[in-house]
Amino acid sequence: MKGITTLGVGEAVDHFLLIKQATKAVTTQGSPFMTLILQDKSGDIEAKLWDTTDEHERLYHPEAIVRVGGEIHHYRGKNQLRIKSIRPMKEEEGIQLSDLVPAAEKPKEVLMEELQQFLFEMQNANIQRLTRHILKKYQTKIMTYPAATKNHHDYVSGLIDHVVSMLKLGKALCELYPTLNRDILYAGIILHDIGKVRELSGAIATSYTVEGNLLGHITIMVTEIDKAAEELQIEGEEVMVLQHLVLSHHGKEEWGSPKKPMIREAEILHYIDNIDAKMNMLNRALKKTPPGEFSERMFPLDNRSFYRPTFDE
Amino acid sequence: MKGITTLGVGEAVDHFLLIKQATKAVTTQGSPFMTLILQDKSGDIEAKLWDTTDEHERLYHPEAIVRVGGEIHHYRGKNQLRIKSIRPMKEEEGIQLSDLVPAAEKPKEVLMEELQQFLFEMQNANIQRLTRHILKKYQTKIMTYPAATKNHHDYVSGLIDHVVSMLKLGKALCELYPTLNRDILYAGIILHDIGKVRELSGAIATSYTVEGNLLGHITIMVTEIDKAAEELQIEGEEVMVLQHLVLSHHGKEEWGSPKKPMIREAEILHYIDNIDAKMNMLNRALKKTPPGEFSERMFPLDNRSFYRPTFDE
Amino acid sequence: MKGITTLGVGEAVDHFLLIKQATKAVTTQGSPFMTLILQDKSGDIEAKLWDTTDEHERLYHPEAIVRVGGEIHHYRGKNQLRIKSIRPMKEEEGIQLSDLVPAAEKPKEVLMEELQQFLFEMQNANIQRLTRHILKKYQTKIMTYPAATKNHHDYVSGLIDHVVSMLKLGKALCELYPTLNRDILYAGIILHDIGKVRELSGAIATSYTVEGNLLGHITIMVTEIDKAAEELQIEGEEVMVLQHLVLSHHGKEEWGSPKKPMIREAEILHYIDNIDAKMNMLNRALKKTPPGEFSERMFPLDNRSFYRPTFDE
Amino acid sequence: MKGITTLGVGEAVDHFLLIKQATKAVTTQGSPFMTLILQDKSGDIEAKLWDTTDEHERLYHPEAIVRVGGEIHHYRGKNQLRIKSIRPMKEEEGIQLSDLVPAAEKPKEVLMEELQQFLFEMQNANIQRLTRHILKKYQTKIMTYPAATKNHHDYVSGLIDHVVSMLKLGKALCELYPTLNRDILYAGIILHDIGKVRELSGAIATSYTVEGNLLGHITIMVTEIDKAAEELQIEGEEVMVLQHLVLSHHGKEEWGSPKKPMIREAEILHYIDNIDAKMNMLNRALKKTPPGEFSERMFPLDNRSFYRPTFDE
Amino acid sequence: MKGITTLGVGEAVDHFLLIKQATKAVTTQGSPFMTLILQDKSGDIEAKLWDTTDEHERLYHPEAIVRVGGEIHHYRGKNQLRIKSIRPMKEEEGIQLSDLVPAAEKPKEVLMEELQQFLFEMQNANIQRLTRHILKKYQTKIMTYPAATKNHHDYVSGLIDHVVSMLKLGKALCELYPTLNRDILYAGIILHDIGKVRELSGAIATSYTVEGNLLGHITIMVTEIDKAAEELQIEGEEVMVLQHLVLSHHGKEEWGSPKKPMIREAEILHYIDNIDAKMNMLNRALKKTPPGEFSERMFPLDNRSFYRPTFDE
Amino acid sequence: MKGITTLGVGEAVDHFLLIKQATKAVTTQGSPFMTLILQDKSGDIEAKLWDTTDEHERLYHPEAIVRVGGEIHHYRGKNQLRIKSIRPMKEEEGIQLSDLVPAAEKPKEVLMEELQQFLFEMQNANIQRLTRHILKKYQTKIMTYPAATKNHHDYVSGLIDHVVSMLKLGKALCELYPTLNRDILYAGIILHDIGKVRELSGAIATSYTVEGNLLGHITIMVTEIDKAAEELQIEGEEVMVLQHLVLSHHGKEEWGSPKKPMIREAEILHYIDNIDAKMNMLNRALKKTPPGEFSERMFPLDNRSFYRPTFDE
Repeated sequence: MKGITTLGVGEAVDHFLLIKQATKAVTTQGSPFMTLILQDKSGDIEAKLWDTTDEHERLYHPEAIVRVGGEIHHYRGKNQLRIKSIRPMKEEEGIQLSDLVPAAEKPKEVLMEELQQFLFEMQNANIQRLTRHILKKYQTKIMTYPAATKNHHDYVSGLIDHVVSMLKLGKALCELYPTLNRDILYAGIILHDIGKVRELSGAIATSYTVEGNLLGHITIMVTEIDKAAEELQIEGEEVMVLQHLVLSHHGKEEWGSPKKPMIREAEILHYIDNIDAKMNMLNRALKKTPPGEFSERMFPLDNRSFYRPTFDE
Repeated sequence: MKGITTLGVGEAVDHFLLIKQATKAVTTQGSPFMTLILQDKSGDIEAKLWDTTDEHERLYHPEAIVRVGGEIHHYRGKNQLRIKSIRPMKEEEGIQLSDLVPAAEKPKEVLMEELQQFLFEMQNANIQRLTRHILKKYQTKIMTYPAATKNHHDYVSGLIDHVVSMLKLGKALCELYPTLNRDILYAGIILHDIGKVRELSGAIATSYTVEGNLLGHITIMVTEIDKAAEELQIEGEEVMVLQHLVLSHHGKEEWGSPKKPMIREAEILHYIDNIDAKMNMLNRALKKTPPGEFSERMFPLDNRSFYRPTFDE
Repeated sequence: MKGITTLGVGEAVDHFLLIKQATKAVTTQGSPFMTLILQDKSGDIEAKLWDTTDEHERLYHPEAIVRVGGEIHHYRGKNQLRIKSIRPMKEEEGIQLSDLVPAAEKPKEVLMEELQQFLFEMQNANIQRLTRHILKKYQTKIMTYPAATKNHHDYVSGLIDHVVSMLKLGKALCELYPTLNRDILYAGIILHDIGKVRELSGAIATSYTVEGNLLGHITIMVTEIDKAAEELQIEGEEVMVLQHLVLSHHGKEEWGSPKKPMIREAEILHYIDNIDAKMNMLNRALKKTPPGEFSERMFPLDNRSFYRPTFDE
Repeated sequence: MKGITTLGVGEAVDHFLLIKQATKAVTTQGSPFMTLILQDKSGDIEAKLWDTTDEHERLYHPEAIVRVGGEIHHYRGKNQLRIKSIRPMKEEEGIQLSDLVPAAEKPKEVLMEELQQFLFEMQNANIQRLTRHILKKYQTKIMTYPAATKNHHDYVSGLIDHVVSMLKLGKALCELYPTLNRDILYAGIILHDIGKVRELSGAIATSYTVEGNLLGHITIMVTEIDKAAEELQIEGEEVMVLQHLVLSHHGKEEWGSPKKPMIREAEILHYIDNIDAKMNMLNRALKKTPPGEFSERMFPLDNRSFYRPTFDE
Repeated sequence: MKGITTLGVGEAVDHFLLIKQATKAVTTQGSPFMTLILQDKSGDIEAKLWDTTDEHERLYHPEAIVRVGGEIHHYRGKNQLRIKSIRPMKEEEGIQLSDLVPAAEKPKEVLMEELQQFLFEMQNANIQRLTRHILKKYQTKIMTYPAATKNHHDYVSGLIDHVVSMLKLGKALCELYPTLNRDILYAGIILHDIGKVRELSGAIATSYTVEGNLLGHITIMVTEIDKAAEELQIEGEEVMVLQHLVLSHHGKEEWGSPKKPMIREAEILHYIDNIDAKMNMLNRALKKTPPGEFSERMFPLDNRSFYRPTFDE
Repeated sequence: MKGITTLGVGEAVDHFLLIKQATKAVTTQGSPFMTLILQDKSGDIEAKLWDTTDEHERLYHPEAIVRVGGEIHHYRGKNQLRIKSIRPMKEEEGIQLSDLVPAAEKPKEVLMEELQQFLFEMQNANIQRLTRHILKKYQTKIMTYPAATKNHHDYVSGLIDHVVSMLKLGKALCELYPTLNRDILYAGIILHDIGKVRELSGAIATSYTVEGNLLGHITIMVTEIDKAAEELQIEGEEVMVLQHLVLSHHGKEEWGSPKKPMIREAEILHYIDNIDAKMNMLNRALKKTPPGEFSERMFPLDNRSFYRPTFDE
């Protein structure tokens, strides 16, 4: 069955979908309706449910799975789903939440195994032990959390997907620039965003926690490294160096790093993070853009629209 | 005896002075000389020592105490000390380093006692215990460190002087705006700069530590609060709230706070810190400025020069 | 009777309300309607009036008082009033405009008396006479105008409320920092915003005057001080000093002050103004925010949302 | 006799010169010397006076006229005057200060006459009377003051030179864009910088007055217009409009205008001011630049260096 | 017949109009409608066409000419056209597209002739030949293209209208500042925006080309000058100088010029361009603004609203 | 023989050195001297030549080779060479300029061969032909020019060294992100900086050309691509795409790119350029920095100082 976001205007819908958001409203004439954001693995689409009742509001809430019949139509430059029928999934239909959310292409276990390989390559015992300790502490969440609530790697297992991709790029850089310290760089890549498992609320319908808002993933991670060092009784300069890599990985004070990178690997970590995030956004947008056309505007890329050359088959 | 910075041009010098900085150089004709920054409690002054030898370099190093004879003269808009005689202090003369460095006006023990009074006013046990714990851990350093290497409160016991002054202002604000939470605000004031005791190298001839450069006093303090909470087994939201106050007290990302203030007392803490630092700089500069004239330019105040009205007796 | 903004969704309305704004429009189907902003002392609420006629447009204009029956409902994250009946107030019902607009908590006469106390404390005759002269000239307006059209102290007598609160803070600062010149600071506080009585259109339904747009309250006040000095034949430097305090109180050129503060009291005036405005905004927003939640975003506070700690009872 | 700045390296000097600045200093070996900035109508040049005595310091002060013998040499990319003999002018030699300061090319009386022509073209009586009144009040100073202490039109009568040049450009613009109001634009041009006669200290050796620093020429002029209107009992909107033109002529808050231009002629006034100032700076720098080379860097032009094409004879 | 934008609310419409834009949509109740932007020489107006069919969509597309009956009404602060009848123009009615689009006031042939006069005044053969060559190559488009898609000179023949107006201003400046090189300045003015004929899609319903987006008119023109020089075998510095004028005419890197002006005429070209564009925008906005009122906000003028004085008849 | 920059303080010098810069000056006592910057392959060092004559000035000019005897001493935190003897190289000594300038580690022929390999991997004939054509046209210069006058790759063959390093990184990225178009990216990397061969004056003692200042290497290269396409009669979109890559490779308007990257490979090109330049600067600075210390400040890296961890052996 084709994913909901891959259907063209006029195509019929008969899909199980997950309610991602549900917002109540009234029309200008005063009749109540709901705006639903419905999703499956292919992404999400908006739909309006007219003349709603209290019963509707009770049934159709975020994280509910529904069966929807209808049709795709076009509204203000975007596809919408025109609902003709809707009902909650019956228990015996057995659809799982995980069947309906976008996720990394590779299984999370494979990603974790790839990540582990990089641990084996580390030579500095302090760095390796610290990194392994923190990985273990949050292993389950690291394997399922997204790397962000939107923009890039914002899907189930997006965090580990991002980290593994960065590690591969880090490895290539270490080969091209042998002065780079592999241990510091790999550990920096692995740790830099793990604070997200406390900054964000979970793998699905992700929002910011209070702690995420007030402290942020950078600060959270710096204190985690401190705590791990104490638990492992590690005292070398490695602790401070890894804290600095995490601290500075946004590259500039304006972007939330209280210190700019001041260690060679910290500078490179910032670039690796940036390249991987941007390639993720660019690929997603350009996949939907035919050759010879411009993509939709992407806010986190300075609101730029990218062109796909005609000869880029 | 008049302090070295209070002497006028032409006045004779016969003072014990502390060498704050000593820089070797050669004249354009190739003869070696040294530039000394010499200080006593009143502040510091520059002096040149001509035709220096290896022996001079051995004797006249930073933190050495010397007896200097000479005269004040004027050079490029500043006073200088023209050295006529110089020798190291003899042991039996018994001058202490502490006799020659500027310090807070009140004794540090008095300042600490004043600070303690604010602890007693706290009602929230978690906040009080956390604050007391950290205060105790670093008590000696808190009582002697400056608040900065230059600009404001950059003298012995400058840190506690700044904190006590801020606490008094905080108390006045709590009386005027009763919605402010006294416990949060007092604790925030006490803790906000304690990270300086690890960021800076000591009470005298202060410079930045490696950790100070790579992590900074804000991050250092946030991890200290975490550690204290663990040691005291405190788990309430107070821990995170105090971490946020420390984290955000510079007010903006560009100024080194990874999060802007998002709690009422955090916003006010930023203002109190600012006012107290600026009053300290303004008072110091305007004390030297006669009515009807402009002060020297102050770099941390956007390089402004301040006017002292003629009628401000 | 409960204020209109304190009613919950579903509660019935039968209130006298003041029309603050009235905007005509047509639905997408072409039928005319009006959007009304209705207010009482507790604040304001939006309402739609459907299928309106010329008669409606004639009756329901800004500053008209109406009696409205209806119900509170929820629309796009905000409460709205669903109008079931509406009619103009009858003369014999005797509701006054002043019964329906938010105002300072203390009566304006009390505020003026508090302000006068600070005049008595002044020692410099020139400063005192100048300040008193201008106060007298605009006394009525100073007692009723808001300090702004929105954001902070934007209610009847908001201007004097703001000034008196600032004076109290100024007094506390003078006690903590005795180098501050009380006369200059008090006069600066009293005068700094009086230009608003020409910049703004009035105490109710306040907008900007042409002169307010083209010259602004800062410039207006500087010329007023000039005029007052001429009328009182005062020639001392005090005139220029007070002009500078008014001129520089926004703190920076980008914020509309053609000169940055260059007098100690000018610098402090800027801080006092800021703290009092921010406390006013914060208190208003956090009063509506339950412990453990974030407030609505506040545009003039860099669009920040503030957190109210769970333990902040 | 050739002007001092037009002599080449190695050429002999025997000139009457005005001391513009005189700074005392000591060499690294402790012998006193003075740095003199000496000028005649062609501009200024630096000179060192070695082994100076108290007598020298008494004789060679700013605004003293001296007779200097010596030679031009080259030092760090600039010409200097090597002094071989120096003595104060004798009274009977009768050199005037005005013989030795750069000035506008046209006599100040001619410039004033040209300016007056524009007054005659004004049709609006209020605008004409206001402008004439202020012109009269400061006529002497307007005819001799520079327009700035450095950068552009920084010579005797530079202010009126600048204004007349702007009026001619204003006239050309009124012809090309007939919607421009001639009265407003001419008056705005004439008045915009007259505040300089109180902001600056005088026609020669010009510095900022206290009032110039604390209020600035823009604010000074706005209050002058107010005062003039009162004296002439003019009440129309013209007063406010002219105040707005003066207020906004720097174009942006960051550049010291508390309001951006909001009247058509105010916007154009800002451009005319800019073009005339820049042409003045460009012409001065490029006159010294041979075809095929770059000029010296000009700080007020974003530190740019301008190229003179080889074919620009 | 009065132009569509000059009719008041309530006035009847019976006009031939050009469809400038046509957007399909559905109401919240699901019935399809179209939003049309309709224009004649006086400007454009919005209209809604309710309950549309496929037939409507086929007939009413951009660049179609229609006859519309209806009435002007007011909606959200703007006039709209309420359509009562609409039909495509019949061939025999013979209305031309050019009858319904705004255009420069003077005929394009007159503008071209005026422009040619400036070519005759040029003395430098290289500059003249280069300019003439490029003018000829794109002559037709230069005579019909707008200078921009919106904001200023955004009408048929707007480009040449802008250039001719700038040339006149350039001439006035050359007379006032005789150091300006007429040849360089005139050629710079003529060439600076010709790249628009490749950056933009055409004279009507103008949008950006792919090349316009990826390279921009500045770069396009610089390569055109290179090509022209090669075709004419011109090798002098004039080529580079003209390229620099085009390159730098936006004045700053942030505004799309890879180099700031570094030639006297380049600096002035930037000012002339700015003044002419702003006068065009100001005149258009203020024509619609009665004396004593503020214009609509203009986004490219920092979103400012301009005041028209009451005495500006 | 040890390179001049690798000698310690006090070590004797007897080296052939190249004069990189020679500046004449006079001491404060009026005796002439010269400041020489002398270099060999290891880098450069400053030296003073006292009491110089016209003969000295004639002999010791930039690009002259000299034999110098003397000693290394320390002056203001930097090493200097104290000259005891100096004479011009005798012809028979046969030292070549190329023996005394720093250069890429690999021979330029090897670098060119490595670069050629990437041409072979290209599949798109248009892109390959265009790139090959331009490479050929400037082959000699590409093999010897530096990539910049200072900061990074500022040595002989620095340009091709930078390009080859970037190509290797580009290849690694194409493997990790298969959506990248290899042809576009490789061609973009090869072409992006070739404009430097016209922007800069040569391989040694490099400065900016007039054309380099007025047009810049970006614009120069865009017109070169245009010309190449015409000569090869290539008309596809590839021409514009490569022009866009060159145009946008500085990433932002503020940094001299008139267009931001709008093609996936353009975005990545900007990152590759940045990483390779920064690794070059970081490696050079950190090679001189012992573990546990901070490097000198690097201006093009926001003036940051980088820390080398103690455990980074």
